[in-house]
Amino acid sequence: MTTDPVALTADLIRCPSVTPEEGGALTLLEGLLSQAGFECTRTDRNGTPNLYARWGRRGANRSFGFNGHTDVVPVGNPGDWSVDPFGAVQKDGYLWGRGATDMKSGVAAFAAAAIDFVTDTPPDGAVILAITGDEEGLGTDGTRAILDWMDEAGEAMSHCIVGEPTCPETFGEMIKIGRRGSLTARITATGVQGHSAYPHRAKNPLTAMVALLHRLDTAELDQGTAHFDPSTLAVVTVDTGNPATNVIPAQSRATVNIRFNDRHSGASLSDWLQAEAAEVAKATGVRLDLDITVSGESFITPPGELSALVSAAVEAETGAAPVLSTTGGTSDARFVKDHCPVVELGLVGKTMHAVDERVEIAQIHRLKTVYARILTDYFA
Amino acid sequence: MTTDPVALTADLIRCPSVTPEEGGALTLLEGLLSQAGFECTRTDRNGTPNLYARWGRRGANRSFGFNGHTDVVPVGNPGDWSVDPFGAVQKDGYLWGRGATDMKSGVAAFAAAAIDFVTDTPPDGAVILAITGDEEGLGTDGTRAILDWMDEAGEAMSHCIVGEPTCPETFGEMIKIGRRGSLTARITATGVQGHSAYPHRAKNPLTAMVALLHRLDTAELDQGTAHFDPSTLAVVTVDTGNPATNVIPAQSRATVNIRFNDRHSGASLSDWLQAEAAEVAKATGVRLDLDITVSGESFITPPGELSALVSAAVEAETGAAPVLSTTGGTSDARFVKDHCPVVELGLVGKTMHAVDERVEIAQIHRLKTVYARILTDYFA
Repeated sequence: MTTDPVALTADLIRCPSVTPEEGGALTLLEGLLSQAGFECTRTDRNGTPNLYARWGRRGANRSFGFNGHTDVVPVGNPGDWSVDPFGAVQKDGYLWGRGATDMKSGVAAFAAAAIDFVTDTPPDGAVILAITGDEEGLGTDGTRAILDWMDEAGEAMSHCIVGEPTCPETFGEMIKIGRRGSLTARITATGVQGHSAYPHRAKNPLTAMVALLHRLDTAELDQGTAHFDPSTLAVVTVDTGNPATNVIPAQSRATVNIRFNDRHSGASLSDWLQAEAAEVAKATGVRLDLDITVSGESFITPPGELSALVSAAVEAETGAAPVLSTTGGTSDARFVKDHCPVVELGLVGKTMHAVDERVEIAQIHRLKTVYARILTDYFA
Repeated sequence: MTTDPVALTADLIRCPSVTPEEGGALTLLEGLLSQAGFECTRTDRNGTPNLYARWGRRGANRSFGFNGHTDVVPVGNPGDWSVDPFGAVQKDGYLWGRGATDMKSGVAAFAAAAIDFVTDTPPDGAVILAITGDEEGLGTDGTRAILDWMDEAGEAMSHCIVGEPTCPETFGEMIKIGRRGSLTARITATGVQGHSAYPHRAKNPLTAMVALLHRLDTAELDQGTAHFDPSTLAVVTVDTGNPATNVIPAQSRATVNIRFNDRHSGASLSDWLQAEAAEVAKATGVRLDLDITVSGESFITPPGELSALVSAAVEAETGAAPVLSTTGGTSDARFVKDHCPVVELGLVGKTMHAVDERVEIAQIHRLKTVYARILTDYFA
C-alpha cells in the first residue's frame, strides 16, 4: 500500500480541531485505522477526546507506539493569514494551515507509515497510536488519560515515539531524548506604603523584590549535565502599577520561570527559592510570598536502543545522524516517559503556533519514510 | 485689634478652592487686608489666581514676607468624610475640612497676626503677604508668577516665612530651613522578546532592569551633610505587563525617585544615573533609556538671623527650641529662596491631603501668637 501522508495531513487540517474541539480529526483517523485492521477505542475523559488504536494483539512481546495530538492552537486573527487557516491550501511546495507543522503532519506521516507497514509486512508484535485531542490545552485529560486507561486495560507500549516538531531548521537534524523541567514562581512582595520623601517611614517592597530577583537572576544553577544544557532562569515580568512618583508602593509582583535539567527537581528548586526569599525578607523586613508551580520535572531516556534505532533511520534518509537533544519546551513525552522509553522525532517547527503555519510537502513524505524505516527495523 | 484666626480659617475652608479654582478665598483675603491698609494686587498669570499684599511703603529698608497658598487638593470621595469637607465644622476641639491643615490655618494665622500688628504697632518697614492659588497643582504660574511680578514692579521681601505645616507630631517641634531636591528617572529597558525555554535566543530586558535597579537601590549616595539627612533613592514602580510565563518580554519600565541634599545637584545625579545605565547596558546588551526630570534642586537658608528669630519665637511660646530641619517634600520655599532668606514654620501636618483633614483649634491661636512675636521681634 502507499497511503498518502500529504492528503491525510490536508484532510486533518480541514478538521477545525482548535483545542479542546475534536473537530472530526479523531473520527477521521479512527475510520482510517479501523479499516486497516487497528482496534480503536475512544478513551475520552471529562469530555476531552482521545483515540487509542492498536494493530496486533494486546500484550504482544514487542509493541511500538506513537504519541501525538490532533488539536491545534487558535488561529488568532484569520485576517492576518495569507490563506484560509483550515483550507489546507497547497502552494509554493508547502501545505498551509493551522496544525500543518504542529502536528497534523506528524500524525498523518506515522498513521500512513503504520497502515502501509501492517498491511504489507504484518509484524510479530503490536503497533499502537495514542492520539489525544488535548495537548495544546491543559492536557489534564489528554495523553495522561490514554495512559491511565492503558494501565487499567492491560495495554502497553514497549517503546514510543512522540511526533512533535523537533528540528530547528533542517529535517532530521535533531531528535529529543528528554526535556528540561519547568517551574514557575509567582512572587509577591508586601511592604508598607509611604511618601517617597520619607522612605524611612515606609518599607519599600521593591527594595526586596529587586534584591531577590537580582540574586536569582545572577545565580548559576549548574553548568549543564551529560545530556542537558545548563538550567536557565528568566524573570518574565515585574509589575507594580504605581503611577505616583512621590509614593512608595505597598506591594509588587513578579514571575520567574526556571527550565531545569536533571541536576534539580521541582522540590529542590522550590526549597532554594524559598531559602533565597527568606534571606532577603529577613534583611529587608519586607514580606515575600512565593506561589510555585512545577509544570514538569526534567526527564531523559538515556541514549540506547530506541535513540540508536531512530538515529539510524534518520541517517539512512538524510545522510547525517541527528543531534540527541534535551532542549526546548514541554511535550506529552513528559507523561509517556513514565510508561516506557520515549524519544521525539518530527519536522521543522519554525512556523508552529504562528500565522501562516505551513509545512514543506516533501518533508511530510520524508518523515513517513523515516517512520516506516523505524517500524521495519524495530520488528526486524 | 484681635483678629480671630479660627473664624478666618473657617471662612477660608468654606471657599471651595480646589486647585486651580480660586473659590473666593483670595477675594476674601484681599477684602480683609485692604480694609487693614494693605495695598493689594492680584498678580494672576495665565488664569492662575495670585494675591500680593503689602502694608507699608514699597522699597522699605526692612520688609517681612509671608508665602502661602489657599488652593487645596481634591477631597476624594466626599462620602468617606465624617463631615462636609467645605463645612468648617468645629467638634472635639478641632476645625474640620479640606485645607484645615494645608494650609488655610497657616494663611489665616499670619493674616490675623499681620493685621493686628500693623494696626496696633505700625512698624518702620513693610509687611508682605504673597499668597498663591496654585501650589497644589503644577505651580508654574503660582508663587513663581508673584515673584516674577515683584521683580518687575520693584517689590521685595527682606526675609520670608512659608506657612506650610512643618511639624510631624507636636506644634513647634520643627521648622524647615531648606529642602532636599527631587529627581525622577523613568527607565525603559528594551531587549528582544523570546520563548522562556530558549533564553539564549532572546535578550531579557528584566535582567538589565533588575541589575540596574539593584545597583541604584544599594548605592550609598552620601552620609548626610551639615544640615541635611543622607540623600535617598526609592524605586517606586517596575512594570512589564507580561501575562505569559513562557515568554521573555521585549520591554519593561521602572521609575526611580531621588531626594537629594546639597552634596548633589540634578545634573550630577543625572550624570551618575546615565553612567550606571550605560555600564549595565554594555554588560547585558539591553538598551536602557532614561527620561529624567528634576522637579527641584536642594537649597538651604543656613542657620542665621532668620532661623534664630523664628526659633526664639517658637521657644517663647512652647518652651522648647524647634529642630532646624531640611527633611520632607517640596514647597514653594524652593522658589522664594532665590528671592530672599526663607524658613518654613507651620502646624502639625498629620492629616494633610487625607480624608477628615482637621486642625486643633488651640494650635491656630498658638501659631498666630508665634507669627505675631516674629513680626514684633523683627521690627523691634
